[in-house]
Amino acid sequence: MLIETLSVFPEVFEPYMSASIMGRARSMGALDFCAYDLRDWTHDRHRTVDDAPFGGGQGMLMKCEPIYEAVEDIRTKHETSPHIIFVTPCGASFDQACAQRLACHERLLFVCGRYEGMDERALDLADERISLGDYVLTGGELAALVIADAVVRLIPGVLGDEKSAVDESFSDGLLEYAQYTRPADYHGKQVPDVLLSGNHAAVDAWRRKSSLERTARFRPDLLEQAELSEQERVWVKQFMDQRAHNEGE
Amino acid sequence: MLIETLSVFPEVFEPYMSASIMGRARSMGALDFCAYDLRDWTHDRHRTVDDAPFGGGQGMLMKCEPIYEAVEDIRTKHETSPHIIFVTPCGASFDQACAQRLACHERLLFVCGRYEGMDERALDLADERISLGDYVLTGGELAALVIADAVVRLIPGVLGDEKSAVDESFSDGLLEYAQYTRPADYHGKQVPDVLLSGNHAAVDAWRRKSSLERTARFRPDLLEQAELSEQERVWVKQFMDQRAHNEGE
Repeated sequence: MLIETLSVFPEVFEPYMSASIMGRARSMGALDFCAYDLRDWTHDRHRTVDDAPFGGGQGMLMKCEPIYEAVEDIRTKHETSPHIIFVTPCGASFDQACAQRLACHERLLFVCGRYEGMDERALDLADERISLGDYVLTGGELAALVIADAVVRLIPGVLGDEKSAVDESFSDGLLEYAQYTRPADYHGKQVPDVLLSGNHAAVDAWRRKSSLERTARFRPDLLEQAELSEQERVWVKQFMDQRAHNEGE
Repeated sequence: MLIETLSVFPEVFEPYMSASIMGRARSMGALDFCAYDLRDWTHDRHRTVDDAPFGGGQGMLMKCEPIYEAVEDIRTKHETSPHIIFVTPCGASFDQACAQRLACHERLLFVCGRYEGMDERALDLADERISLGDYVLTGGELAALVIADAVVRLIPGVLGDEKSAVDESFSDGLLEYAQYTRPADYHGKQVPDVLLSGNHAAVDAWRRKSSLERTARFRPDLLEQAELSEQERVWVKQFMDQRAHNEGE
């Protein structure tokens, strides 16, 4: 996969794109990366990329001309046409299904906004517009890195253990169960006995209940979609009552 | 505000924390930043921070001991006690209200997980657990940067224009309207006439309709909570029909 970014802060990408899993993906040849500087497609002495909005309002907008010229140039740098993603709060919400879909592309180009927004005509270049979540960032650079990270780890072979990408939070619509490693006793804080028992069925049952407890505590919205047994519904009711009780304290 | 991070990849933070708005916040004295290396609190030759999970399962978990020791040491480095945030998929979803709440703290410490997860006992140290969204990342470093970015821009004075932090996407529960800047005609792509008219009431009406159109197109879920007039409900119905029609093509 080739990942490219177009931004006025091209220098913020490389340290993350060289570290850890991203660095491993690149050194094993599964990933290429290139960060372009949008200002390289300006033609004035000040390398201007922004201007005031028509119709009034505070702040500056990114102009459409450098973005059009840049995307046109970048597009032809390789044989495969890029899938062009604009990261913007005015887009569809990013989720794991979107990451899986993007992982099927050979070439992704992220266009990262700054300032108050972007001339709407530039957004016409987007194959898709993606928002990271319901919060406002100073720009799209971090959002592009987050999406790239979620996508690259899904490329086969990039994670050491193939199973890791599957058996984790969200894969069954619930949060992952609590986990423990050595020591079994840390200053009186004990690992639950069942996890030391070697009884696999008991471990699985404990983990399912732990998933339900955590989901009820942190993400009760996910329980609406989850498939639960009758016993599990009783537990969830107890966990929710406990949550309400704690919040009332 | 003092922001600190505890992570096994301390080197990925500085480039972003020095660029743009974050760099400005630091140079104006509104923000201090420090990235700690979790491995500085290990005691073995390999500087081990992870171990296999009790009860079986693939992948490695972050051990609780170095995290406890690190948090204990970091806590006492300054007079103000830190608000401790663990970034993890098993947490409450981050949103703009959370950013506003965090912006009131003087000192934030982000603890960033890696690998398959973290010993649950370490998570007991958290004042809160925050998830960036319903997707899986290779670690918590980017999530900490995203949260820090959303928070720092809310510190008074950090954005050049005080109004910018308010009048934008999500502030009225809708996506922001489309915006345009010069040129009025870019290779035949025209800015809507009304925005060039100087008629402020007409501009405001156009922008409201544009907000509704974009929200219906990208985030119809937001419309359930929005306060709409009868006319606006008719428009929304039309936009939704158009969306369904386009998807059916």
